[in-house]
Amino acid sequence: MGTMSTHTFEPTHYHHTLGNHPPVLRIAPGDTVITTCVDAGGLDRYLQQVTPRGNPMTGPFFVEGAQVGDTLAVRLEKLRPNRTSGWSGVVLASNVVDPDDVPILAQARGSQRWLDWEVDLRANTARLRSPAGPLEGFELSLEPMLGCFGVAPGRGEAISTATSGPHGGNMDYRGFKEGVTVYFPVLVEGALFFLGDGHALQGDGEIAGTGIEISMDVQFSVDLIKGQAIRWPRGENAAYIFTVGNARPLDQCVQHATSEMLRWLTSQYRLDTQSASQLLGQCVRYDLGNIFDPAYTMICKMPKKVLERLSSSQ
Amino acid sequence: MGTMSTHTFEPTHYHHTLGNHPPVLRIAPGDTVITTCVDAGGLDRYLQQVTPRGNPMTGPFFVEGAQVGDTLAVRLEKLRPNRTSGWSGVVLASNVVDPDDVPILAQARGSQRWLDWEVDLRANTARLRSPAGPLEGFELSLEPMLGCFGVAPGRGEAISTATSGPHGGNMDYRGFKEGVTVYFPVLVEGALFFLGDGHALQGDGEIAGTGIEISMDVQFSVDLIKGQAIRWPRGENAAYIFTVGNARPLDQCVQHATSEMLRWLTSQYRLDTQSASQLLGQCVRYDLGNIFDPAYTMICKMPKKVLERLSSSQ
Amino acid sequence: MGTMSTHTFEPTHYHHTLGNHPPVLRIAPGDTVITTCVDAGGLDRYLQQVTPRGNPMTGPFFVEGAQVGDTLAVRLEKLRPNRTSGWSGVVLASNVVDPDDVPILAQARGSQRWLDWEVDLRANTARLRSPAGPLEGFELSLEPMLGCFGVAPGRGEAISTATSGPHGGNMDYRGFKEGVTVYFPVLVEGALFFLGDGHALQGDGEIAGTGIEISMDVQFSVDLIKGQAIRWPRGENAAYIFTVGNARPLDQCVQHATSEMLRWLTSQYRLDTQSASQLLGQCVRYDLGNIFDPAYTMICKMPKKVLERLSSSQ
Amino acid sequence: MGTMSTHTFEPTHYHHTLGNHPPVLRIAPGDTVITTCVDAGGLDRYLQQVTPRGNPMTGPFFVEGAQVGDTLAVRLEKLRPNRTSGWSGVVLASNVVDPDDVPILAQARGSQRWLDWEVDLRANTARLRSPAGPLEGFELSLEPMLGCFGVAPGRGEAISTATSGPHGGNMDYRGFKEGVTVYFPVLVEGALFFLGDGHALQGDGEIAGTGIEISMDVQFSVDLIKGQAIRWPRGENAAYIFTVGNARPLDQCVQHATSEMLRWLTSQYRLDTQSASQLLGQCVRYDLGNIFDPAYTMICKMPKKVLERLSSSQ
Repeated sequence: MGTMSTHTFEPTHYHHTLGNHPPVLRIAPGDTVITTCVDAGGLDRYLQQVTPRGNPMTGPFFVEGAQVGDTLAVRLEKLRPNRTSGWSGVVLASNVVDPDDVPILAQARGSQRWLDWEVDLRANTARLRSPAGPLEGFELSLEPMLGCFGVAPGRGEAISTATSGPHGGNMDYRGFKEGVTVYFPVLVEGALFFLGDGHALQGDGEIAGTGIEISMDVQFSVDLIKGQAIRWPRGENAAYIFTVGNARPLDQCVQHATSEMLRWLTSQYRLDTQSASQLLGQCVRYDLGNIFDPAYTMICKMPKKVLERLSSSQ
Repeated sequence: MGTMSTHTFEPTHYHHTLGNHPPVLRIAPGDTVITTCVDAGGLDRYLQQVTPRGNPMTGPFFVEGAQVGDTLAVRLEKLRPNRTSGWSGVVLASNVVDPDDVPILAQARGSQRWLDWEVDLRANTARLRSPAGPLEGFELSLEPMLGCFGVAPGRGEAISTATSGPHGGNMDYRGFKEGVTVYFPVLVEGALFFLGDGHALQGDGEIAGTGIEISMDVQFSVDLIKGQAIRWPRGENAAYIFTVGNARPLDQCVQHATSEMLRWLTSQYRLDTQSASQLLGQCVRYDLGNIFDPAYTMICKMPKKVLERLSSSQ
Repeated sequence: MGTMSTHTFEPTHYHHTLGNHPPVLRIAPGDTVITTCVDAGGLDRYLQQVTPRGNPMTGPFFVEGAQVGDTLAVRLEKLRPNRTSGWSGVVLASNVVDPDDVPILAQARGSQRWLDWEVDLRANTARLRSPAGPLEGFELSLEPMLGCFGVAPGRGEAISTATSGPHGGNMDYRGFKEGVTVYFPVLVEGALFFLGDGHALQGDGEIAGTGIEISMDVQFSVDLIKGQAIRWPRGENAAYIFTVGNARPLDQCVQHATSEMLRWLTSQYRLDTQSASQLLGQCVRYDLGNIFDPAYTMICKMPKKVLERLSSSQ
Repeated sequence: MGTMSTHTFEPTHYHHTLGNHPPVLRIAPGDTVITTCVDAGGLDRYLQQVTPRGNPMTGPFFVEGAQVGDTLAVRLEKLRPNRTSGWSGVVLASNVVDPDDVPILAQARGSQRWLDWEVDLRANTARLRSPAGPLEGFELSLEPMLGCFGVAPGRGEAISTATSGPHGGNMDYRGFKEGVTVYFPVLVEGALFFLGDGHALQGDGEIAGTGIEISMDVQFSVDLIKGQAIRWPRGENAAYIFTVGNARPLDQCVQHATSEMLRWLTSQYRLDTQSASQLLGQCVRYDLGNIFDPAYTMICKMPKKVLERLSSSQ
């Protein structure tokens, strides 16, 4: 694929939809991009509001040669919070507790909109500012991730960065961290890759409606799998291959992700449906991405260790 | 609570509902029971059909002093498959893939009802019998667990062992393995504890409709927490405390489990709702129990490490 | 089936589960029963609390000759409130509004548990007592119905009258009124028919958590369809045949009810699957039973007018 | 609002998203538009494929003076199929039956994609072409409706005509027929109204995946309610006011629609939350729009008769 380049790109504007927008940069398969993302509220590293809130996206990046029906591979090489302050929702989201318990949350929220976290990039920790209570002095270790990223959807759609779909988007899965490779279906020419919504830390489900929201320095590289069409995002890390289902209710996320995994196993691992069913039935793992956004997210994972033994047994 | 006894109990009949049935044994808090369970199909260690299929239960065990409003603690001390043969569903369940993909499964199932696994108790492995294909010679490590266990529901109900609820039941969560302690609400006098449905191994979700189904030797001990009423099963292992939500869709499982965890954190860990929300929001983990039975199951987990630091910071 | 008898039965005790309880009366196919039901709170016609709250059931009635695999037909001949006072939930249930709107309801509920309605049996109206506000003097016409009725479930289950299933139960469908015939699967010998939970009036969904709850005089007759096994309750009135799905979420209610209707049309109306699909696709109607109880209810209806023309065209 | 005009507009291109596209015509509140829609497959009155399939939209129409925060009222004055041929899906959609029944549908579908209907515009009937079976000679009465219509969503989104949301879109509700007035939130300047996807007839739920799909002559008029922001589509016909919830699962459609109705009753009918709850609880009706598209649709209805008596009692 020729010489691989490293591009440094500083965004000057942001998008609040993933759509067929003019590319900010054209890159080639194999290239690396060093860039930055503002936080979900549109605040940059200097806590300046440089764009309206709502998961503003850096990009899109046009990938040369990417055509509808291909797969775009994105490797998240570095995800580094670039300021010392993050913020989070005050209480749990009202859709993650029993409906009769919602008033408890409303009362605890009071009139506050956000809580502030002090982020120590050297110590790799976050600490609630002046909590005056049981969390006083309490620290959590950072685990930086991207909440929202993906490609332009097809058919002329421009989809809000509040939600997600086959094109990716606001999946808020804590597994989207350094070292992961994510695969997206190419739905428009050039794929048009967007990214943003950094979290310094987030539990499963993004159940307080946010992680610890923060701006980030990001380094990623791209590659293309020509002629391989996928229906839902896929990914892999050191331990697992995984598929992503974005929908509501969670039951449907599981259906999308499991069907996608079944296609993966039967098309690329030479497994028939029955053998794939046995491996999935006894070895599959599911993770909860978000249960807060308009579309929820679940991940279907297969241990590489299992699949590798499979290959060696063939 | 006096002298702790160890009881050995060999069942002579089984139940297909969790209900207010005559106890087979009266035990005291602190006592240990050594017993056996047939598999989900009613087959014992000799592969004899000793009771009809459908998660036959050993028990119930009457716990002296257990009254409505208490909590029963059950520690699973030993879960040991006691024969060398297990069985599993042939293909994925039709509700875990996209509806349009169901015919693929139906075709792959053919006329088979079950697949057989050879279980090697010394090597701790399971191997599909004569698979003649990509899984030939392929082995998986055992991870024995109980699929269905719990207490008698209240209000005169007798609930099928096919499903689950606040009383426990058929939760099919692979975390219910040796070393875990599970808490159930006491809903009738004596609690009436039942157990069965051993799995030699099972992935998340029980998505092939079964794990590797097998009979088991079981050793468990019980204890009582007087005057503590809980609404959903809870548990703990070395790394986590957790709560269990049984319902449909999965969204509602998450709501039940999260509300129960919120109650736990605010009542026993001296956290206000806002502080509990922050810990949950950034540190919570969810596991998928089953997505096959009439009621699905999700587990809400909090790392003990986080909670311990909390205590020491107070 | 021999001489048809009319039985008058005054209950002396009630059940809070549908299960294999001792019958209060043995009746024959073709027989008619005149009896009474207390309200959902256990209050009889004199507003006396004669049994604990929670949809207490009159019955069960053992139907001679009913065997597992048959269908029980129950015709609701008379449903007549028998006192001049009913009660209803104060505000909408918290699960029928957007989660963020629940606190609005909680605030409006205040500390009240119920509202009282004055029922005028001659004028056939209900009026809120002393509402002092926009509903002062406002009247609604009665449309009496049974909220909870059905047969004993099989497999030894005893299922709370709070919920529903293939055996019927707490379906809270306003179509269960005078003149309707309801079909239940016979799941135990004698079918064991139960009834109760009268509503003087109720909108779709029982979204305030109750209708106008009231005790009733009831007259019903039973019949048997030998050798016809059904999986979900069915029914018919002057205009429609219908099927009932009880589950969560509503999507699954629709699936159960539609599958049952498809079976009905293809087994008894001589339609192939494709023709049945065309009729359903262009003519089907769905009603919402309840969206409040642990299991929700939806009804799938086909106009008899359409099906009659079908017969004449054959 | 000045002189009301009638515009005749013949489309020359179509849209497959509802978005901020260049208007084809600028109209004023009070104006009437006479235009045409192709069918869902892009076929016009001459059965010519004039645009790709997938609910192609006529429009958008820019309404002078419409600003974000207003409500657009659209009255459907005439909906007239304009050709003698329609088409429909062959069998029920796989998501509306029990998952285990999907293979029955797949087998009955065979290799057919669509069935053809002969539409008699004078007799107002549709008849399956050469069905050779139980539907031979069978006719259904037309009940023309619009499957997909609405306004441009805000925030730069362009949403596929396959789905729906607060902006309307592919709701497939058979109540959207001649004489209905539908209210949409104005989310971009000029509102930008789109319409298409005519059905000669459709049952509840669009459960065969289509109605009888047909091109149409349409006449509609528009009006504005300045300064009234609504969150979900609303509507009214002779008998009901209603609100529309578009989401998944159906439970969430009910929540959206009921919350919107509660806002309507408490803001415009001078009802407090408790009084509105009583009226809804005893009088509400729900209709099923579609249970086929990516977002499902449910309608919450209140009888005007009830609300009128309310006014007169004040």
